[in-house]
Amino acid sequence: MAGGSGTRFWPKSTANRPKQLLGFGRDNPETLILQTLRRFDGIVESSRERRFIVTTELLKSAIEDQVGTKDVTTLAEPAARNTAPCIYWAAREVFLRDPKGILLVMPSDHYIPNREAFRKTLSAAAAWARTHDDLVTLGVKPDRPETGYGYLKTGAEVGRSEGMPCGKVDAFVEKPNLTRAQEFLKSGNYLWNGGMFLWKAETILCAFDSLMPEMKLAWESAKGVLTDAYPKMTATSIDYGIMEKAKNVVSFSLDAGWDDLGSWTSLESVADVLQARADVGIVTGGDVLSVDSSGNIVDAPGKLVALLGINDLIVVHHGDSILVARKERAQDIKLIVDQVKAKFPTKA
Amino acid sequence: MAGGSGTRFWPKSTANRPKQLLGFGRDNPETLILQTLRRFDGIVESSRERRFIVTTELLKSAIEDQVGTKDVTTLAEPAARNTAPCIYWAAREVFLRDPKGILLVMPSDHYIPNREAFRKTLSAAAAWARTHDDLVTLGVKPDRPETGYGYLKTGAEVGRSEGMPCGKVDAFVEKPNLTRAQEFLKSGNYLWNGGMFLWKAETILCAFDSLMPEMKLAWESAKGVLTDAYPKMTATSIDYGIMEKAKNVVSFSLDAGWDDLGSWTSLESVADVLQARADVGIVTGGDVLSVDSSGNIVDAPGKLVALLGINDLIVVHHGDSILVARKERAQDIKLIVDQVKAKFPTKA
Repeated sequence: MAGGSGTRFWPKSTANRPKQLLGFGRDNPETLILQTLRRFDGIVESSRERRFIVTTELLKSAIEDQVGTKDVTTLAEPAARNTAPCIYWAAREVFLRDPKGILLVMPSDHYIPNREAFRKTLSAAAAWARTHDDLVTLGVKPDRPETGYGYLKTGAEVGRSEGMPCGKVDAFVEKPNLTRAQEFLKSGNYLWNGGMFLWKAETILCAFDSLMPEMKLAWESAKGVLTDAYPKMTATSIDYGIMEKAKNVVSFSLDAGWDDLGSWTSLESVADVLQARADVGIVTGGDVLSVDSSGNIVDAPGKLVALLGINDLIVVHHGDSILVARKERAQDIKLIVDQVKAKFPTKA
Repeated sequence: MAGGSGTRFWPKSTANRPKQLLGFGRDNPETLILQTLRRFDGIVESSRERRFIVTTELLKSAIEDQVGTKDVTTLAEPAARNTAPCIYWAAREVFLRDPKGILLVMPSDHYIPNREAFRKTLSAAAAWARTHDDLVTLGVKPDRPETGYGYLKTGAEVGRSEGMPCGKVDAFVEKPNLTRAQEFLKSGNYLWNGGMFLWKAETILCAFDSLMPEMKLAWESAKGVLTDAYPKMTATSIDYGIMEKAKNVVSFSLDAGWDDLGSWTSLESVADVLQARADVGIVTGGDVLSVDSSGNIVDAPGKLVALLGINDLIVVHHGDSILVARKERAQDIKLIVDQVKAKFPTKA
């Protein structure tokens, strides 16, 4: 899945250049979508028949510029309509090619540094999905009482796959407050919902037919014309449309350093990789000099950035735009982007 | 006088482009040196015989690019050695051309918005200097208890010129603390030392011979070869070398909105002209959008600057350099420039 509106990392990200097309970190300039594709090497064959990127018409050419067209098929949605239509379409495409095929559904803009741990969990989960009519999630093992993510509440172990336990998912839980998040962490029964799923094409299409029957109706009434079908499909998330209602959801616990890179401040969670500087903070681009400064996040490739008495700010230069934001307001960058869209639309 | 090291407004100013070569304010893009020259129109003839700019070899061509060579003579010092050698040389040049000539000595990088008030005071002071062997200063009438300027302590009125009182200067006073500055303001007997002087060439040369006799010795032993004379002249200020010691110093009070533009924050003193924005602060270049921000100073021509939760900062983009500084640290930008000189000398 490679849509996205490009607001959270503005001005580095824009509507035409959302997060998956960007690289983060000095020593890791590979873009997130290329990292995502490489994560499957040796597990998922590199071919147009096995790898699909679902994105929007707006982003198709930019994505193909990065990933090429030889080893992956790009499916361009007529419009972004959240994850349910995207996954429905992808499942139909896979089913057409292989009625027994299974899908691994992954966001293309997440950060998963421990590739070996990821592959091991993925292999176990894929083996389970191949042999069960379950909706399998990769739930991320929490290492802190995070209030910014949704959680999966796991119940009884329903079996093992390649030595790894598979747990029943009893509930999808919205972002908790800190007290609840601390309880979740302590209980050991909760995983972060990272939006990573595995299932047979047949299993997820059955789930759609049962829980979102309008999807099949939309598709069939449009006689396969995508631009006719899409507006009729419900623009909702797979979580809300399917996962929260289905009874056959199970989960494998992923412990591979996952982060969704949801905002500039999330870079601090991967600070060990980015090597935070005591005299500045995180620097993901540009030369930085400082006096009496710390705890900042600076991304300004090609620029010399000088900080004097500056703490806990985000300083970004890209294109002709400069963002200076308090770190604690990182979630509100969309308020800035709204203004940019209204007044300087080419820069959003 | 048009020397300067270009540190205080870095990165807008640099060693090759000090403050006098820059314009400040959206509605007033004329550079400070051009403003300075224009301030004398109608008072000082626009000619190479009447107008002299003393600068350094480093800056000569940049200055001549702005002011031309037709109506003003540029004197390039072999090296910057503070104001005393600069004024000594200029006085000799004027004396050569007109033994009865008087000099008006002015910094080229100050801001004086009320041109008519300036001309009126200048005319009165020039008339006094023409008819008295005094060292005349234009002292700035203070409108606040400023601790960032030196003061002139004025005593008895010694006469009037064109209706304006001329006061004896009893002392040059270093930058005071706030309590003393408040006393100065209340007493009405103190003026800011703005470094603006008038005197006969003959009078100042006499003062040099009496108080800094080494200047004449240096000049004569070098037989007029500037590069030989300059290293032998004492690198000190006219204030310390002459004014604080001379007995014949008088002053006229200038009330024309003067500011020395000593730092980025000084732009706030001219905020009425620069039209501070409630949602940002002072903007002297660039488009600025903001959320929950105020009291900032932004100069980033050609850029879109977005501020999110930002208060009391200086944000500047020029060339390939970006400065983000706390306003209260504006006087410490030189610490940054020292680092720039050491690590990125072409950007200082």
